[in-house]
Amino acid sequence: MISSGIVVEYNPFHNGHAHHLFETKKRTNADCIIAVMCGNFLQRGEPALVSKYSRAKMALEAGVDLIVELPYAFATQKAEVFATGAVQILSALDCNYLCFGSESGNIELFNSTLQFMKEHQSDFDFFVQQFMKQGYSYPKATALAFHELQTNEAIVDLAQPNNILGYHYMKAIHDCQSKMIALTIERKNAGYHDQMLSNTSISSATSIRKSLFDKQATLEEIRSSIPITTYLELVAFQNDYETFIRWENYWQYLKYRLLQSEPAELREIYEMEEGLEYRMQSNARQASSFQEFMEKTKTKRYTWTRLQRVCTHILTNSKKAEMKKRSKGAEYIRLLGLSQKGRKYLKEKKELISLPVVSKLSAVNEETIRLDVKASHVYSFGYPAPIGQKLIEQEYSQPPIIKPEATV
Amino acid sequence: MISSGIVVEYNPFHNGHAHHLFETKKRTNADCIIAVMCGNFLQRGEPALVSKYSRAKMALEAGVDLIVELPYAFATQKAEVFATGAVQILSALDCNYLCFGSESGNIELFNSTLQFMKEHQSDFDFFVQQFMKQGYSYPKATALAFHELQTNEAIVDLAQPNNILGYHYMKAIHDCQSKMIALTIERKNAGYHDQMLSNTSISSATSIRKSLFDKQATLEEIRSSIPITTYLELVAFQNDYETFIRWENYWQYLKYRLLQSEPAELREIYEMEEGLEYRMQSNARQASSFQEFMEKTKTKRYTWTRLQRVCTHILTNSKKAEMKKRSKGAEYIRLLGLSQKGRKYLKEKKELISLPVVSKLSAVNEETIRLDVKASHVYSFGYPAPIGQKLIEQEYSQPPIIKPEATV
Repeated sequence: MISSGIVVEYNPFHNGHAHHLFETKKRTNADCIIAVMCGNFLQRGEPALVSKYSRAKMALEAGVDLIVELPYAFATQKAEVFATGAVQILSALDCNYLCFGSESGNIELFNSTLQFMKEHQSDFDFFVQQFMKQGYSYPKATALAFHELQTNEAIVDLAQPNNILGYHYMKAIHDCQSKMIALTIERKNAGYHDQMLSNTSISSATSIRKSLFDKQATLEEIRSSIPITTYLELVAFQNDYETFIRWENYWQYLKYRLLQSEPAELREIYEMEEGLEYRMQSNARQASSFQEFMEKTKTKRYTWTRLQRVCTHILTNSKKAEMKKRSKGAEYIRLLGLSQKGRKYLKEKKELISLPVVSKLSAVNEETIRLDVKASHVYSFGYPAPIGQKLIEQEYSQPPIIKPEATV
Repeated sequence: MISSGIVVEYNPFHNGHAHHLFETKKRTNADCIIAVMCGNFLQRGEPALVSKYSRAKMALEAGVDLIVELPYAFATQKAEVFATGAVQILSALDCNYLCFGSESGNIELFNSTLQFMKEHQSDFDFFVQQFMKQGYSYPKATALAFHELQTNEAIVDLAQPNNILGYHYMKAIHDCQSKMIALTIERKNAGYHDQMLSNTSISSATSIRKSLFDKQATLEEIRSSIPITTYLELVAFQNDYETFIRWENYWQYLKYRLLQSEPAELREIYEMEEGLEYRMQSNARQASSFQEFMEKTKTKRYTWTRLQRVCTHILTNSKKAEMKKRSKGAEYIRLLGLSQKGRKYLKEKKELISLPVVSKLSAVNEETIRLDVKASHVYSFGYPAPIGQKLIEQEYSQPPIIKPEATV
């Protein structure tokens, strides 16, 4: 069986993702689509709109065959670490292709960028350091360093978020000596950060979430941007869980954590930098919403995304030592859902899969998977209490979701 | 000026407390009544029904002249530590009398008990150890050890909660070589733990709270058990803060704390014993209320009160090292409220007061008073968010409440 891997958040699954899926199947002629998906907390340090199991259902309904969780130790990280974890998991599943969306859409440009960077890595690193010393954030310093290298070669614009991710997928494939072949598909219509719901049928997930939260739109109104399967899953989720999730749902817990922690405890938190702990504690005391807290805390150096990631790690009590240990390399493949084809794939490839496949929590060392379990437990506190309780139990009891054979 | 000290929780102030106050004034002929009151968390490891400032108002209205906070490091502790902190503060205020309520009501019996215990302390300690090894709780082991000593001398029944406290006040006075003279008043009518609202005008604070929470009674219905000043303060509090406070208000935060903490972190919490941390984490995962959690966790060895204290320390993140350091001896006198007479007293005794009197947080070393500030911050999370925010600010901005001169 030919398999193609994709790395996703599906927050929520929308028409742009359907396009990505369709093109991936078409271009690679894949029998099995494998998606590595962030769990309940996402790359930009945000809680997911709906739980990982709901998002896994959306993916299966839309045609993904095998959906596995990108562990917390990779999922909530900058592009380099995020990409490495995802590539390691796909490689361990003996995946043939990795197909990513990018602003560029030109795989040759990525290849030449990789080549160029190999030759200029030390200069590049030097410039990045310099710009960071001047107080620029890491993404901004990266973009400036690129500009500084002043190449005439055709390379990818690494100031674009999906290009950066793509570059790191390819670098990870190279560094891991993976046999996966990389392809890229140009992202259609909506920029990643676009906040206005567009009239076309492809809107970014950001704009869809923003529409939902700002109450500009009901589920009915965003329906043109999402497949019917996502729409039905969102309706069911809203009925079952009463709420969609965003940072504000955790504000009281984050504030509580910040106010009862000692500065020394906060310094142990992953990505917490000396000095930031006091700033956060003082702002937490005064702010009455997450938005207000973030606006008070944000600086040129501490970007919104970076701060959100630190907040996520505070909320989940994820520490430097453990995050470093767990992000050294993927240690397991946690199965969230599979189609009949996905099942067949796992059976066929059984001998070739190089990491333990986890479908029950009890099957894996508690210590190894603890960050993911803790993240799910903490995620549940964004829901009304009785529903949160169900989510806590689900983390232990939910087997992978199996999509039945289509009956035609 | 003659001053008499009392040690109180006023949760809430009721007719029994008014009786205590009246008798204290009468018997000691005091010009100034000084109350040392628990802050927002109480001796049995519970959050106070209403905030410390509201309870201070009740006390001033009822005739207390000087009301100071018993620091968290003493207030949430077993009788011995609780009593020592209170006695040290009253002594530091150059108080002449300490007048406590007890089941016994006979100060001579307390004196002979103190004498008896001095002679038999090592036997007594031996028996307590023995009974605790057999799995009895500390209060139960104490009562059994007493029984074991089989004295014919007339001594106080130390199985009674207020007798135990009284004994420790007297022991603390002795140990601190304080010049304070102890008196005791027999508690009227309602036992400390009585849960049914009695028809007489004295009900225990426990029964009053229970009535409020179980909705058997409105404020109107408990009115016969409390002075009109308490009634008005409770009405005002309910209007301002929307809720009265109990453990269930903190359940989600306690659960969150337990689920995101590592066992090693929980072991650092004051009064946490080896093994209890796992039991608590597992029960927290399953329980959907504080009541359910406590019922699951309680054993013969871990009494309800003891567990509640551990839960309070988890909630406030109070650690072994810091609690031990701060409970070694009272370090400051935090002023919550005063009458004109209280003001005069402080002025007159200025030179004799042997600990710093704190009326503004900024006047004291942040480190020293941190446990109290943290406890108040954490307490605020039991309220709806905007109200909690006000309480957080109050901890910094509220000056001591001053009762104006009565205009007759």
